[in-house]
Amino acid sequence: MKMITGGVTAAKGYQAAGLRAGIKAGKDNKDMAMIYSEVPAACAGTFTKNVVKAAPVFWDRDVVYEQGMAQAVVINSGVANACTGEEGLANCAREAELTAELLGVKSEQVLVASTGVIGPQLPMPVIESGIRSLVPELKADPQSADDAANAILTTDTHKKEIAVECTVAGKTVTIGGMCKGAGMIHPNMGTMLAFVTSDAAIDQSLLQTWTGQLIEDTFNMISVDGDTSTNDTCLVLCNGLAGNTPITGMEDGQAFREALEYVLAYLAKQIAADGEGCTRLFEVTCQDALTKEDARVISKSVVCSSLTKAAVFGKDANWGRILCAMGYSGVDFDPQKVDIILESEHGSLTLVKDGIAADYSEEYATKILSGNPVKAQLYIHAGTESATAWGCDLTYEYVSINADYRS
Amino acid sequence: MKMITGGVTAAKGYQAAGLRAGIKAGKDNKDMAMIYSEVPAACAGTFTKNVVKAAPVFWDRDVVYEQGMAQAVVINSGVANACTGEEGLANCAREAELTAELLGVKSEQVLVASTGVIGPQLPMPVIESGIRSLVPELKADPQSADDAANAILTTDTHKKEIAVECTVAGKTVTIGGMCKGAGMIHPNMGTMLAFVTSDAAIDQSLLQTWTGQLIEDTFNMISVDGDTSTNDTCLVLCNGLAGNTPITGMEDGQAFREALEYVLAYLAKQIAADGEGCTRLFEVTCQDALTKEDARVISKSVVCSSLTKAAVFGKDANWGRILCAMGYSGVDFDPQKVDIILESEHGSLTLVKDGIAADYSEEYATKILSGNPVKAQLYIHAGTESATAWGCDLTYEYVSINADYRS
Repeated sequence: MKMITGGVTAAKGYQAAGLRAGIKAGKDNKDMAMIYSEVPAACAGTFTKNVVKAAPVFWDRDVVYEQGMAQAVVINSGVANACTGEEGLANCAREAELTAELLGVKSEQVLVASTGVIGPQLPMPVIESGIRSLVPELKADPQSADDAANAILTTDTHKKEIAVECTVAGKTVTIGGMCKGAGMIHPNMGTMLAFVTSDAAIDQSLLQTWTGQLIEDTFNMISVDGDTSTNDTCLVLCNGLAGNTPITGMEDGQAFREALEYVLAYLAKQIAADGEGCTRLFEVTCQDALTKEDARVISKSVVCSSLTKAAVFGKDANWGRILCAMGYSGVDFDPQKVDIILESEHGSLTLVKDGIAADYSEEYATKILSGNPVKAQLYIHAGTESATAWGCDLTYEYVSINADYRS
Repeated sequence: MKMITGGVTAAKGYQAAGLRAGIKAGKDNKDMAMIYSEVPAACAGTFTKNVVKAAPVFWDRDVVYEQGMAQAVVINSGVANACTGEEGLANCAREAELTAELLGVKSEQVLVASTGVIGPQLPMPVIESGIRSLVPELKADPQSADDAANAILTTDTHKKEIAVECTVAGKTVTIGGMCKGAGMIHPNMGTMLAFVTSDAAIDQSLLQTWTGQLIEDTFNMISVDGDTSTNDTCLVLCNGLAGNTPITGMEDGQAFREALEYVLAYLAKQIAADGEGCTRLFEVTCQDALTKEDARVISKSVVCSSLTKAAVFGKDANWGRILCAMGYSGVDFDPQKVDIILESEHGSLTLVKDGIAADYSEEYATKILSGNPVKAQLYIHAGTESATAWGCDLTYEYVSINADYRS
């Protein structure tokens, strides 16, 4: 597997565009994007488990679960089209219909995604004019992929994209992806918005199964603020243009599955590292747990703790908060068997041995905590399973961004 | 029922003291307190459900569950005596033994509580000297109750105490209480520390049952930051000196139960309103839920949402975040039947009707949000149950306090 450039247009047969339609405030903010596959692509998706779902989530679930194929994605930032009732659903359908008409594809194979403020209706004249401008801009080059990756951002500080190549039975298969995150990030299915395009040929139901499995260890293991969005959506398109014999399982598809996991994990970590107001990525691994689920729950409880996040921001090795967050996670373990090790590019230090303070230097701990990412290894000595969660520190800037988000 | 003064010394037969032993930094910070009952008192208690429990939690559970009677409580702030292993347990036992010896009571009827930094061992010479100084200072006057209420604080900005009188079968019964909160507040049993003293005569097992029930609707419904402490403890003492015929159930005890609920709810709200760095109390009531548990889970999910808390701080009527937090609570409900009403001393305003934006003035919403407490009423039209949760806003100050708590 190797890293390449090109984002969502890296794989064969994909075009993208991103531009300013005029939804968001600010003259220079791009706010609409489109991805187009020259042929229909097998399509997998995972969506928010929030009871309150945005209109495009309802639409995309139908596309993924009933069609299993898609040829275009139209995305806007600025307005989430969530809690918008029947009018919101109709507007979403209209976006798909107009896109389909202009591209000459089926409207039930057009995916739609929105992110931004919950509540307001989409400004449809602006959206429709945006769609009409996007179609002639579609291109298969890195600049267009960048434009699309920029257009989907809200409070993110930079675009998040990746592309990798792997080999499947002698054929080069490419996977590209882009996503956005920043706030209301505690995905319970996918993050706010993530889009992955590949030219692999793969059975659609296998793609859906693998995507669902890989999401559990990637997007579902990050948290910025514990708030699960109404719009969380992760879509994976595979159009088969790589020309490989269609993948049917682990025997012929392991390299693809590993590359897909790498892409999803990379995008997930990018979101955690660019959490609203954050200064550093915080990576927590629970080791030697009895079950994988125990390891997931414990590591996620620690990255979600406001007190631990604030201590990371302050470079304070307050391991008591880590142990406390492990303790209220709901998993049963023996606190007297816990070891906690802190790591970063500045070194590694044992803070806790057998549940009590190890003899360590606070000064050295502070130095390690000034690194990025900051990693914590939690050994609970109960079994052999492990899991990693990714979060970020809690800062003044997070409060500032969210005290007045809508203005 | 009427409010009176005197805190934990208001009821007959209780004495208290609070002073500076020298555990905390700062010359003027009181850090040790004691409560003494002239006769053994029936004792009920609820404790943290965190797997990681502080040494005094283990000790007090034995007192409550095995003895059911107590005559004194010794409390320190500054150090939590949590994650301190065998040495921590021995230090805790030593505190009870020395207190018992000096007061001439049984050491297994002395309760112990600690709050502060997790990890360090108690400074025992300072603690022992503190206990020796506290005993001669014990008095049954409001000043001593105030001293005790001040000595148990950590990042709290003010003491929290209350006393009420009620009538039980013709006899005046008094209930007093004090507590501390501020950070690591998401009680899953009681808050950090709460102490209630009453002269009621009541069967111990009934007292334990009622305390457990009332905690569910009071201390377990508040949250400052979602972090459940290792030290959460709520203790209720009833020494019988009011001379009432011992209470055996709702027929003869309803007035006492109502007064006890009032005291517990008052103390819980005081903790939420004095959350670390907070500027306003945020009270959320879920109405018309199918079950009481549904109502509890939904209202608590909203007061725990970082995004909602930051919006309250910014006086931003971002109801989308409220609906979003309801949606990820885990309770199933119909988002299209939700009404949300905002209230404070400045008025009342419907933000959401049938799941979508009502036609309201943002300016008026901001005015309501500048009140204190800020209240949100969430109607989900699924049944007849309701529950209220209390939290606070998320501010720069919270981050500042917790980025460097141990320094």
